[in-house]
Amino acid sequence: MFATRLERARAAMADAGLDVLLLSVGADLPYFCGYEAMPLERLTMLVVPRADQATLVVPGLEAPRVVERPDVFTVRPWAETENPIDIVAGRAGSAAAAAIGDHTWAGFLVDLGAAMPDTTFTRASTITSPIRSVKDAAEIERLRTAGAAVDRIMARLQSGEIRLAGRRENEVAAEIAGQLREEGHDRVNFVIVASGPNAASPHHDAGQRVIQPGEGVLFDIGGTMVGDDGVGYCSDITRCVWVGSHPEREFLEAYAVLHEAQQASVASATVGTPAEAVDHEGRRRITDAGFGSYFVHRTGHGIGVEAHEDPYLVAGNAEPLEPGHAFSIEPGIYVPGRWGARLEDIVVATEAGPRPLNRVDHGLAVVER
Amino acid sequence: MFATRLERARAAMADAGLDVLLLSVGADLPYFCGYEAMPLERLTMLVVPRADQATLVVPGLEAPRVVERPDVFTVRPWAETENPIDIVAGRAGSAAAAAIGDHTWAGFLVDLGAAMPDTTFTRASTITSPIRSVKDAAEIERLRTAGAAVDRIMARLQSGEIRLAGRRENEVAAEIAGQLREEGHDRVNFVIVASGPNAASPHHDAGQRVIQPGEGVLFDIGGTMVGDDGVGYCSDITRCVWVGSHPEREFLEAYAVLHEAQQASVASATVGTPAEAVDHEGRRRITDAGFGSYFVHRTGHGIGVEAHEDPYLVAGNAEPLEPGHAFSIEPGIYVPGRWGARLEDIVVATEAGPRPLNRVDHGLAVVER
Repeated sequence: MFATRLERARAAMADAGLDVLLLSVGADLPYFCGYEAMPLERLTMLVVPRADQATLVVPGLEAPRVVERPDVFTVRPWAETENPIDIVAGRAGSAAAAAIGDHTWAGFLVDLGAAMPDTTFTRASTITSPIRSVKDAAEIERLRTAGAAVDRIMARLQSGEIRLAGRRENEVAAEIAGQLREEGHDRVNFVIVASGPNAASPHHDAGQRVIQPGEGVLFDIGGTMVGDDGVGYCSDITRCVWVGSHPEREFLEAYAVLHEAQQASVASATVGTPAEAVDHEGRRRITDAGFGSYFVHRTGHGIGVEAHEDPYLVAGNAEPLEPGHAFSIEPGIYVPGRWGARLEDIVVATEAGPRPLNRVDHGLAVVER
Repeated sequence: MFATRLERARAAMADAGLDVLLLSVGADLPYFCGYEAMPLERLTMLVVPRADQATLVVPGLEAPRVVERPDVFTVRPWAETENPIDIVAGRAGSAAAAAIGDHTWAGFLVDLGAAMPDTTFTRASTITSPIRSVKDAAEIERLRTAGAAVDRIMARLQSGEIRLAGRRENEVAAEIAGQLREEGHDRVNFVIVASGPNAASPHHDAGQRVIQPGEGVLFDIGGTMVGDDGVGYCSDITRCVWVGSHPEREFLEAYAVLHEAQQASVASATVGTPAEAVDHEGRRRITDAGFGSYFVHRTGHGIGVEAHEDPYLVAGNAEPLEPGHAFSIEPGIYVPGRWGARLEDIVVATEAGPRPLNRVDHGLAVVER
């Protein structure tokens, strides 16, 4: 699998006129070689020359963690008193054009630029994103498994099995984080629990605020399930719950608009549709209902080995959806200082039409406690 | 406080001939302005011209999370359809020399390089590290508080209050992670639980292995406590525990060497001593006892707002210790396939001598269960 992926990368490098691909922290590395680098001041870097064997340059004390794959790469551990930049520059040879992993620490790029003064650097994502964004059947199955896991957690929030009223947001978040792990995630990427006015900040985390009856609570949760091959796939879902028996009329009306907009965007996500058209489809409905200025973010992002990756569903991205593209569809309405709501599924574009991977109820659940 | 810190940075920029400082993800940003950027494909960047007001360029939907500090920076939120690189390049003006945060994503540096073709980029750490590495009294107090918290957790491991025998490493790690939070950490940075032969890999995490009587277990744990000012300080400690009543003689003898070496390094960490001499002091003892080839890493790293930062206690770093330098001292002995041991304290260099911030027992605790 990894050898095949690297061959695809090498073909793209040839098309783009790139001599070497340099991958470090982030999702490219596990996707292409099954090893994930720790985000350390000690450099880990996979050096992939277009026409030569790949080398994983890795700190000596991380080397025991590397699963060796001689058909994919050789391992070059470096000692504490060696300079890994020189080792990478040596393996990269006299490359005129290099692509560097987008999430590599800039400090290392500064150092590489000094060690390879005749080399031009571009973003590795120009090579890796088109490959990573098209998921095969096995990858879609892993995304589906992760999606089913968060569906089960959301069902417990919607049924009232997880108590909300009278608890602090971060208490509830800790319980949900535990469930993400129990349901098979190896990493918890985020647990947003945003109650009442806190939900008006789209990336509110989870704080000390005590959840009250008579308000909405927004849950946006996700994690990563790492397989035996060392590659992880992500979940990501958003649902809203109303605490108390009678949702406020304004919230109910806005939620109905949001629900319709989200379903319209999902239905529009067919193969060949420009990514921005999926955004437009839901946004138009929210705008028509008078909430346009409260929908302050794009509609969605791709998902796979990374929680956010290509394709992005945003105005300006005319890229047509391809079979195997997996992405979130998550419109939201945020009224500053008062309340917010968002509804999110992961969806895969297939020849048979958009396939949502999240199936848990999309309605506004009302819980008593 | 932030204004003072930025003034120090500007003075260092003037000395170094730098026109603008560009800070993004990582610890520099909260240290200098109290705001921590989410590691997102959406760019957050503090633009600090040497002779003009600083600007925090931030994604619009993160802007509600920013605590505004008009004496330190102005906020420039950017909308989903704007290009933040252009905004940063505009604020940076026609800088000839820029310093970019070491942990900034390399993809953004590639883009900035294209948008600012006449600018030379260097590592921001050349400016920020000398400032950050010298802690004032309030910072040392926050490191001490974090250290006391992990001391209490280690005491529970040493007393047998946290059961080990028959439990999987990752079960114990989850319990310790919970205690890190209960003891006041806002983030859990790492919880290494390495039993028996797993301890021979210095960065073994915590896995499925069941801890057995008759073996050593290495615990290396740390987290971050974030203050009301948005700045977090880290803990980091390592202790070993033997499970069962009779430690193996070889392990006991090696541990005694390790203990003596660690204490010798701590005692040597006086103001003015070169960082590498602290490494040498302990390594010499471990080498003399015949374990030199099993001590495969440097002796320590600085600690503060980041878990690993300057100064590094490693051969080749002749930098003399200054009053207020805070760092780990953590020699280890690792016999591949068999066992490993490490002993770590955080220590501050002061005019009155080295001040260890971890006080929990340094001996090899033996627990029955």
